[in-house]
Amino acid sequence: MSRLVLQNALLDGAPAWVEIRGGTIERITREVPHGESSGARVIDASGLHLFPSFKNGHTHAAMTLFRGWGDDLPLMEWLETRIWPAEARMTEEHVYHGTRLALLEMIRGGTTYLNDMYWHSAAVGRAVEEMGLRAHLGSVFIDLGDEATGRKWRAAVERELDELGDLHPRLQRAVAPHAIYTVGPENLEWLGERAREHDLLFHIHLSETREEVERCLQVHGVRPAFLLERLGLVTAHLVAAHGVYLDPDELAVLGEAGATVATNPTANLKLATGGIFDYPTAREAGVRVVLGTDGVGSNNNLDLLEEMKIAALVQKHRAMDATVLPAREALALATTNPSQAFGLGSGTVEEGAPADLVLLDLSGPWAQPGHDTVSDVVYAAHGSAVHTTVCDGVVLMHDRVVEVADEAEIIREARRAARELVG
Amino acid sequence: MSRLVLQNALLDGAPAWVEIRGGTIERITREVPHGESSGARVIDASGLHLFPSFKNGHTHAAMTLFRGWGDDLPLMEWLETRIWPAEARMTEEHVYHGTRLALLEMIRGGTTYLNDMYWHSAAVGRAVEEMGLRAHLGSVFIDLGDEATGRKWRAAVERELDELGDLHPRLQRAVAPHAIYTVGPENLEWLGERAREHDLLFHIHLSETREEVERCLQVHGVRPAFLLERLGLVTAHLVAAHGVYLDPDELAVLGEAGATVATNPTANLKLATGGIFDYPTAREAGVRVVLGTDGVGSNNNLDLLEEMKIAALVQKHRAMDATVLPAREALALATTNPSQAFGLGSGTVEEGAPADLVLLDLSGPWAQPGHDTVSDVVYAAHGSAVHTTVCDGVVLMHDRVVEVADEAEIIREARRAARELVG
Repeated sequence: MSRLVLQNALLDGAPAWVEIRGGTIERITREVPHGESSGARVIDASGLHLFPSFKNGHTHAAMTLFRGWGDDLPLMEWLETRIWPAEARMTEEHVYHGTRLALLEMIRGGTTYLNDMYWHSAAVGRAVEEMGLRAHLGSVFIDLGDEATGRKWRAAVERELDELGDLHPRLQRAVAPHAIYTVGPENLEWLGERAREHDLLFHIHLSETREEVERCLQVHGVRPAFLLERLGLVTAHLVAAHGVYLDPDELAVLGEAGATVATNPTANLKLATGGIFDYPTAREAGVRVVLGTDGVGSNNNLDLLEEMKIAALVQKHRAMDATVLPAREALALATTNPSQAFGLGSGTVEEGAPADLVLLDLSGPWAQPGHDTVSDVVYAAHGSAVHTTVCDGVVLMHDRVVEVADEAEIIREARRAARELVG
Repeated sequence: MSRLVLQNALLDGAPAWVEIRGGTIERITREVPHGESSGARVIDASGLHLFPSFKNGHTHAAMTLFRGWGDDLPLMEWLETRIWPAEARMTEEHVYHGTRLALLEMIRGGTTYLNDMYWHSAAVGRAVEEMGLRAHLGSVFIDLGDEATGRKWRAAVERELDELGDLHPRLQRAVAPHAIYTVGPENLEWLGERAREHDLLFHIHLSETREEVERCLQVHGVRPAFLLERLGLVTAHLVAAHGVYLDPDELAVLGEAGATVATNPTANLKLATGGIFDYPTAREAGVRVVLGTDGVGSNNNLDLLEEMKIAALVQKHRAMDATVLPAREALALATTNPSQAFGLGSGTVEEGAPADLVLLDLSGPWAQPGHDTVSDVVYAAHGSAVHTTVCDGVVLMHDRVVEVADEAEIIREARRAARELVG
């Protein structure tokens, strides 16, 4: 079993020696340990701050290929003139290369897990497995009310379910209906049954825009969360991405069921959907809230340190209360909360926890004078502060050198793939 | 006269050779120039993107000493229990060390100018002069309606005016009344006369909170900009920081006069003032809009690349229109607009312009595949992308090594100063 020792890291401000064996934090001591560490890889973490790694609650990783291609456009124009035509040309290989580019950026930014929803999720899984991260893989399901399309995607889901046993241990499967306005109720129900039967995540965009809510009220007579409830889909398996317009009654139902909302503040602002997720009410209602970057088309990076800050800022603004979503809670949105929501252990740095860790370099002027480390991480840091990234006890990056992939090759292939799609 | 050559930089996507002499861009060629560059410092900029450097429209630089000390508190509690008691203990030396820390962070983030408002502005000027940046120095003026206090600060301003001729060419002077609710009308008028007489910037916090507007209506019967107009203070010298609650009529008056608003979106969100500056109306009215970080207490960094993104995000959100404040305009808020507002030349990269420049390293995965360089800079980059910073033709940082200061010494002294103040 692989062994790793992080020597003399700063953990909650005090020196710590962390021994990792086979993917698990085995021992944390506050003094130089007496035992020998022969056979272990030893990393000198002097002066570096040890934190749990970050987990991204909602992504379309392969969309890195479209970064910066069609900003500042109205949502429908962007989708119709840019994204959808390009996506229609995408092959499994394009998705593979786009995802690898995303994972490279994630590793550099200290992210070791993504809850991904995209086409060709087998290619996403291949990239994640190769590069050493963890993920939920969700193949997008869209029927647009067409029965034949629905049958085609049901068959695809069934194939995936047949292969569940073959998944790499760092991978999990999700069902991923795109949204309530792109998937018919029968197929939503059918996917919900599959999720229950196989204990899978049910990952869906929910209540992202006002139009979605209005249309749901018009067509179904209820708000989006109540439509899901009617279909038996509000369970602990549910991960609702965005939830911008969920009202207190809807949040109460989600909280009761132990459901999760993945909030993506940057994307909501950039696409100008007009609303801000009601975090204080969700928190009060017991909803599990996690943080996502969404795809880079609406962000345009995958930096969860930036996203924590933006989440805290918009929540304070929305509530007109500077005490809302303080730094420690913002950090939890990308560490402990997603770890619980996605079955990744505690998301903390403690004995027995999965060794999904980052070492942060807070020596730069932007983190001085260092009154409050968590504040400096949430409000002042960016992904560039990440010095070392560890997932499942394996060093993905050390001293800002990615060890699990050929960075130049990934960038070269991603650029080639992007040119093929965008021209 | 000092000479500098930037070889083979990417300017608007194509290679360029830039020759700088004595602080000015003398020549830009698209092919290897024939002339010899003996005596010049030559920087190989291959693969790096050349942009104008960034200018910070509203700062309290020395507040770096308080970074992370009292986040997530209500504004008045933060000021009364944390900032004001600590500021009362601040000496000129504390301000010097805090400002140097800020300038170090600015150089690393590509910022070469700050419009600063703080106590002990002589110490701010000393730090800026030593470290090679440009600044407007504004000594805060607060009388709280007390005549003796007013007299004391008037005398201080008069001393500063006497010494205008001694200012270093990279420094300019501003008068800086704190706000309309902390400085009486007579002193505001008196400062306005000094600004006109000596052609100085008039830098004031204006319409930052709803309470300020309500109180102004109550006490003076008009909204804040109309109070300033009544006092003869709405001129091209005016730089109004924040302007969150300026209404269309107020913006029309500011636009007519050629006044400037410095918007600080992060600070407005973090302090939960509830409003967002009405950028589209201001732009339409011809108001010059520049970007600021405010002090780090309400940010918590001085990263104008992050600030551009947050500015664009909140403006799209406010207008519910994804096309508002597109990437190129967001970049202008920290380059061309402040250059014009603060008398710093064109703020562009062209022959005859001041050599205030940055070289950006967009080779990382976060800037791939590179469909749109300006989008990558505004929406995906952070200060860590800055490779080289040049101000007035002098290299302040090259290859991420700060050349004009001893970074370790600055950090050490700032930490010591912070401990003295905060304990």
